[in-house]
Amino acid sequence: MITLSSDFGSPYPAAMKGVIARRTDARIVDIAHDLPRQGVREAAFWLRFVLPEFPPATHCVVVDPGVGTDRAALVMRAGKHVLVGPDNGVLSPPARALADGQPLECYRIRAENPASSTFHGRDVFAPAAADADSVNTNALESVPRFVPTERTVDLRFPTPTLEDDYAAGEILVVDQFGNAISNVPGTFLDGRTGERLRVETPGGKQEAPVVETFAAVDEGEPLLTVGSHGYVECDVNRGRGDDAFGLGSSDPVEFHAL
Amino acid sequence: MITLSSDFGSPYPAAMKGVIARRTDARIVDIAHDLPRQGVREAAFWLRFVLPEFPPATHCVVVDPGVGTDRAALVMRAGKHVLVGPDNGVLSPPARALADGQPLECYRIRAENPASSTFHGRDVFAPAAADADSVNTNALESVPRFVPTERTVDLRFPTPTLEDDYAAGEILVVDQFGNAISNVPGTFLDGRTGERLRVETPGGKQEAPVVETFAAVDEGEPLLTVGSHGYVECDVNRGRGDDAFGLGSSDPVEFHAL
Amino acid sequence: MITLSSDFGSPYPAAMKGVIARRTDARIVDIAHDLPRQGVREAAFWLRFVLPEFPPATHCVVVDPGVGTDRAALVMRAGKHVLVGPDNGVLSPPARALADGQPLECYRIRAENPASSTFHGRDVFAPAAADADSVNTNALESVPRFVPTERTVDLRFPTPTLEDDYAAGEILVVDQFGNAISNVPGTFLDGRTGERLRVETPGGKQEAPVVETFAAVDEGEPLLTVGSHGYVECDVNRGRGDDAFGLGSSDPVEFHAL
Repeated sequence: MITLSSDFGSPYPAAMKGVIARRTDARIVDIAHDLPRQGVREAAFWLRFVLPEFPPATHCVVVDPGVGTDRAALVMRAGKHVLVGPDNGVLSPPARALADGQPLECYRIRAENPASSTFHGRDVFAPAAADADSVNTNALESVPRFVPTERTVDLRFPTPTLEDDYAAGEILVVDQFGNAISNVPGTFLDGRTGERLRVETPGGKQEAPVVETFAAVDEGEPLLTVGSHGYVECDVNRGRGDDAFGLGSSDPVEFHAL
Repeated sequence: MITLSSDFGSPYPAAMKGVIARRTDARIVDIAHDLPRQGVREAAFWLRFVLPEFPPATHCVVVDPGVGTDRAALVMRAGKHVLVGPDNGVLSPPARALADGQPLECYRIRAENPASSTFHGRDVFAPAAADADSVNTNALESVPRFVPTERTVDLRFPTPTLEDDYAAGEILVVDQFGNAISNVPGTFLDGRTGERLRVETPGGKQEAPVVETFAAVDEGEPLLTVGSHGYVECDVNRGRGDDAFGLGSSDPVEFHAL
Repeated sequence: MITLSSDFGSPYPAAMKGVIARRTDARIVDIAHDLPRQGVREAAFWLRFVLPEFPPATHCVVVDPGVGTDRAALVMRAGKHVLVGPDNGVLSPPARALADGQPLECYRIRAENPASSTFHGRDVFAPAAADADSVNTNALESVPRFVPTERTVDLRFPTPTLEDDYAAGEILVVDQFGNAISNVPGTFLDGRTGERLRVETPGGKQEAPVVETFAAVDEGEPLLTVGSHGYVECDVNRGRGDDAFGLGSSDPVEFHAL
């Protein structure tokens, strides 16, 4: 099974599907092709969230602001999974999650033919994903153009500050519905359901209740809850949390007990 | 075969695909993940329209404004098909269509583990769909956490008023192109092709011709026709019927012969 | 394998998938369903770009402003591939690319039952694609309702004017990111990397550098490059080329050496 993730929109990913289908009958599963444009850290967040749900697979990820520069193209073995994508950090958070404590094995993809300088998804990553998926995960070195490499870009999400009655973090992503997802672990809200917290953002200060479900507040009201990824998020019931709290991706956010 | 429908946008449905792929090799087919947000009746309309085209399958539907409340999670056998989703009525119009006159068999899904309170698509419905698809449609009770149940929310589309020269109904959905689809059956237009009708909406009154194809009127002109779902719709050739007629989802609409 | 392309948005294509799945177990691959609405030439461009990446397959294409008129519905054999779609030219550029010099074989699809007049994707093209994919590519005439035909609409992209220091062409498509893709072949830029050209468009005149990668200019700066389809495109690094150059689909564009 090969999964595809990119910021290519449509119809470019279809060219990748064709390239893969010419090389292997493997099942192809689209993860998303509307990842934030050139948003390496946001893509890493979503893939960290989604890919661990999958059985062992080859995950081809193309969010690649450096296409055409000399950044390496990578194949990574992470536990029973393989990741393929540019060496800009986008693979590292999902790889750590998939590796389950085992060391990562990294290879750079040696260019076979002159690739187009603008569409490595089609010309470099899709063929590499097809080839990686066609060999045993333990034998990636059997693909001649996969060259073992050591140093790769490591991306880590920022670490929040956590105290008893206070947490300071950062918004990692805003989803399509305006839910602003922070890096503050959901455990910070343990035992606080029903309390109100003061939320400080670049957009100002406001209070909001800690709830377990959106429906616990009236339509249009702000709320704080633990999302399905395990982090504290700033939301509005049937509305947009990013607007209500004045928050965008990468913005700082503080939660204060009252 | 498992079909997936939701209002989750992207990339959340990918997590459901992973959960399913870990449990079964069944083929997964996306119906739509951009169903109107929390639009239970609109989702029911679209699924009633689309699902009967499929061969016997398990259809997982997650449009669920009540997630986290005590609404039940359902598995329904409808003829040779199985539907999985929240007990809010979204399943009932497609289920009636798929059952083809046979009685529905309903089960509620007993929660296995503490599910996240916000992402039942991943934690409740996707695993249930995988399990339902893995057993014989006649033996759903062999899945231990599927508990037979009787009463479920029944959603029915409103009944229009039909007279010889007059019909009064309601807009069920507006599609992405602005076509405003009513609940007035297409038979109301039988024998009227070429006639003009007066259309009364919250946006005002206007006349429009009854045609068989969009191309029968000039670009930008309003028209009335029978859509592929069999209902009267208010459209504009290469334009938006909702704007031209002043119509939105759930609005009343009347058609008068002149 | 059956690929699907349309301008239907969502959820209409799901009905086509159901119709196909009832007739054949063939794999279904979505190319795109957000092709420009009724944009026959733009669809032809994208399919010419994407379909040749695929192994032999049946490609069902529905961009059909003439639905409900008497335009024919076609099945075309092009080399080892089969194309299915309306006779409006949308199939001809990809068919020529797939035929690889061999003559095309064309059939019109005789209507079996009264089709809906608005959804031939579901009622005509999807069943024809399923049937075409189920027989040998060399024996399409074994499907009784495929009737050999000779004359079909031939669509060709306009030919640019090319001189040593000057090229005049037309924008074929603007992609989702605002890259304005012309019909001027990339070879016009051979040996000019690093030079600046004067670009004349309906929006005015400006100079822009010829580069090999977007990253060669600062964020927000215009550039000229050869895209992955082999044509000269007018782009902006992390911005929209269509806005910066004042260009839309079908607009004339000239490139002058300085």
